Amino acid sequence: MLDASSAIERWFRLRWQAHQPPFYCSVDLRNSGFKLAPVDTNLFPGGFNNLSAAFMPLAVQAATAAIEKICPEAKNLLLVPENHTRNRWYLENVATLAAILRQTGLEVRIGGLSAQEKTELETATGRKILLEPLKRKGTRLGLEDFDPCAILINNDLSAGIPAVLQGLDQQALLPPLHAGWAVRRKSAHFAAYDEVAADFAQLLQIDPWLLNPYHARCGEIDFQARAGEECLASNVSMLLEKIRLKYLEYGIKDAPYVAVKADAGTYGMGVMMVRDAAEVRDLNRKQRNKMAVVKEGLAVTDVIIQEGVHTVERIEEKAAEPVVYMIDRYVIGGFYRVHGARAADENLNAPGMHFVPLAFEESCTMPDPHVSCDAPPNRFYAYGVVGRLALAAGALELEQTAPPPAA
Amino acid sequence: MLDASSAIERWFRLRWQAHQPPFYCSVDLRNSGFKLAPVDTNLFPGGFNNLSAAFMPLAVQAATAAIEKICPEAKNLLLVPENHTRNRWYLENVATLAAILRQTGLEVRIGGLSAQEKTELETATGRKILLEPLKRKGTRLGLEDFDPCAILINNDLSAGIPAVLQGLDQQALLPPLHAGWAVRRKSAHFAAYDEVAADFAQLLQIDPWLLNPYHARCGEIDFQARAGEECLASNVSMLLEKIRLKYLEYGIKDAPYVAVKADAGTYGMGVMMVRDAAEVRDLNRKQRNKMAVVKEGLAVTDVIIQEGVHTVERIEEKAAEPVVYMIDRYVIGGFYRVHGARAADENLNAPGMHFVPLAFEESCTMPDPHVSCDAPPNRFYAYGVVGRLALAAGALELEQTAPPPAA
Repeated sequence: MLDASSAIERWFRLRWQAHQPPFYCSVDLRNSGFKLAPVDTNLFPGGFNNLSAAFMPLAVQAATAAIEKICPEAKNLLLVPENHTRNRWYLENVATLAAILRQTGLEVRIGGLSAQEKTELETATGRKILLEPLKRKGTRLGLEDFDPCAILINNDLSAGIPAVLQGLDQQALLPPLHAGWAVRRKSAHFAAYDEVAADFAQLLQIDPWLLNPYHARCGEIDFQARAGEECLASNVSMLLEKIRLKYLEYGIKDAPYVAVKADAGTYGMGVMMVRDAAEVRDLNRKQRNKMAVVKEGLAVTDVIIQEGVHTVERIEEKAAEPVVYMIDRYVIGGFYRVHGARAADENLNAPGMHFVPLAFEESCTMPDPHVSCDAPPNRFYAYGVVGRLALAAGALELEQTAPPPAA
Repeated sequence: MLDASSAIERWFRLRWQAHQPPFYCSVDLRNSGFKLAPVDTNLFPGGFNNLSAAFMPLAVQAATAAIEKICPEAKNLLLVPENHTRNRWYLENVATLAAILRQTGLEVRIGGLSAQEKTELETATGRKILLEPLKRKGTRLGLEDFDPCAILINNDLSAGIPAVLQGLDQQALLPPLHAGWAVRRKSAHFAAYDEVAADFAQLLQIDPWLLNPYHARCGEIDFQARAGEECLASNVSMLLEKIRLKYLEYGIKDAPYVAVKADAGTYGMGVMMVRDAAEVRDLNRKQRNKMAVVKEGLAVTDVIIQEGVHTVERIEEKAAEPVVYMIDRYVIGGFYRVHGARAADENLNAPGMHFVPLAFEESCTMPDPHVSCDAPPNRFYAYGVVGRLALAAGALELEQTAPPPAA
C-alpha cells in the first residue's frame, strides 16, 4: 500500500470527482495483521475531542475546503447536536467541532432539537456552550436572530427525522437526512463497500477480502418472540464456513467468528459475537433483551451478520482498535479505542473503553520490520486509506439510498 | 487576533476567491513583541526538509487541494529545481517536496535546467534523487518519456528566464515566470503588501504599521561607482525619522534601524543593516563589494530600504525568527531560523544559521500571560495570519506585475 501511494491517491482523486464525500465521517477499523477492514462507519461522528489537539490544523484545513464548496460567501453555520446534554464528554465533542468550524471563518451557533430556551452548558473540561432553541421560518431553519447557510447535524437521528428538519430546500443540510439511523442500514453501507473494495483491490491487484469483511443480513427478526432465528442461524453458518475457507487459503490459525449487529444500531448497542450457529438458537432472556432494542428504544427487526476481525493492536497490552476521522475527503486524525476488559475478538465499543490519540510520531513502529519507514505517517497511512474506502462507500451508499426528489 | 479569528478566516476566504494564491510560498517574519511583520516573501521556497515530519500530512492535504484545481485528471508533474546539485541539504528539500507531491497521487519526476544525462544524486540523509534532462517538444516541456500537466519551478530564476521555460502555453507553470528574481522586485511585493495590510488592519481596527514595515526604494544605484548614494542616504534618513515618530507614539525604547537590500536579491545576500544615514555615505570597499552583487553574480542597481524589526524570539538564548510555509492558501508549517552569532537587529539568513521546527505543542508559551491558550495553535496562529497576509500580497503582486498576454 505504501509503494502504491501515488496510484492510490490518484484513484481517490478521480473517485471524489465522481462521488462527493459526506461532510464528515469516522470509521472503526480492525487490523488483524493479515487483514485491515472497516467494521463501522459513522456519518455523525462524535469524539472530535478525542483527537490530538496538535492536529487540529489538519481538521481546520479540511473543513475550510469543505465549507468553500458549500457556502463560499456565507458566514453562518448552525450545528444541531444530540439531545443528551448531560453527557459532558459529548458536549466536549460539540465544543471541539464548533471550534474547528469557527476557525474556518464561520459564525457557528448551536441549536438544540429539544431546547426551549437559551441554555449555557458546561463541557467536561469546563468550556461553555450556548444551546439555543431552533426557529423555523417557512422552509428555512435558524435561530431567533441567525439565518445559516448550512446546517450541520451531529445527531444521528435514531429517533426519526424531526419535522423541523424536513423540507428545508434552501439550505445545505449536512449530511443529508437519509444518513440518519431512522433510515440508514449498515447492510446498505457494506453493500456499497463491496463495490468500492472490489474496485480498489483491482487497482492493487489484491484479494478484496483482505480489506473487506464478509457480511449477510436478515430481516423480520423479533428477538423477543424468537422469530427469524433460522435465517440468523443459517447465515451465521454460511459466513463462518466462508471465513474458514479463507483462513485455510491463507494459513490462518485464528478461530473464525461473526458479529451480529442491529442493522440500524449505533453506540455499540445491539451487538453480539458468535462463534457457532448454535449460539443464536439458544439465546437466553438476557441476551434477547440486549439485542432486541437499541438507542432511543427502537426495536431491532433487521440485523447484519459481519465477519469478525481479530485485532492485533495493543495499547499497554490492552485490546485496541483504530478509529479514523475524516472531514470532506481528508483524513484529519484518529485515535485508538482501548478496552482493558475485552478480548481481541470482542466489541470494544462498550462502557469501560478509553481513547488514545493516534500519533504520527509512532508511525514507524510497524510490527513488520520489512516495511519501509520512509514515509513518516506509515501505519497511519494504511488506516487512512481504508478509512477513506469506507468514506467512499458512504458517498456511494448515500447516492444509492437518496430519496427521489420531490415532484 | 485570536478573538477575531472567525472574521479573519472569512476575510481570507473572500480574498482567495478574488485573488488566486501562488502555488507555494515561505515568509520570513519578525516579531518584536509590539509588531509582527513579514520581512521577506519567497515564491520558490526551499527548506521543506526543515519542516517537522509530523506535519507532512498538512502539506499533503494542501497540495492535494492545489493540484485538484490545476490538474484535476492528470497524473504527471515535473519539478525543476535549482542547479546547485552539490548542496545536499538543498537536495533534501527537493526530495521532501517531491515526496509531498507524490503523496497527492501525482507521478513526480525531476528535470534539471542544466542536466545533460540522467544522474542519480544523494541527499544529505542519503535519499536518492534522479535528475533528468529536460526535453522540449514544440510548446510542451517534459522529459524523454514524460509529458507533465504542470511544471513546478523550485528555481528562483535569478540568472534570467531560460529559453526552455518560455512560451509554454499548454502546461501550468507554477509559479508563473515573472515570479522569478530576473523580473521580480521586493519593492513591488511590499507595495502590494501595503494594500493588503491596510485592508486587513481596517478589519481588526488596528494601526497597519503593527503588521507592516515602512519601506522605500532607490533605483540607478552603482555601489562600486558610488552612484546613487544620495538617494540612499535621504531615504534612510526619512525612514529612520518615520520609525522614530512611531516609536515615540507607542513608547518604544529600541533604537530604530533599517535594512538596505538588493531589490531583486535573495539568499540573504546583498543585505546591510543601517542605524544612521551617514553609514551609507561612508561604505568601505568591502561593504561596497558585498552590496554590489548578489546570487548568480547579478549587479545590484535597485535597492529597497526596509524598516528593521527587532526580534524578541529566542531559541536557547539565540536570536531567532519564524519562517512560515504555505501551499496554496494553507499554512503547512514553519520553523525558527536561529543564529547564535547574530543580534536581534541583524540579518539571521547567513552562514551559521540553523533551523528549529515550529511546534504546535509550544503554542501556549506566549510571553503574555493574559493571552488565552484556548486555541492550541496560539502563537503559531498569529504567525500563520501574517504569513498569509504576505501570501495575499504575493498574489496581488503577481497580478499587478503579470506581462500582458501575447497577441
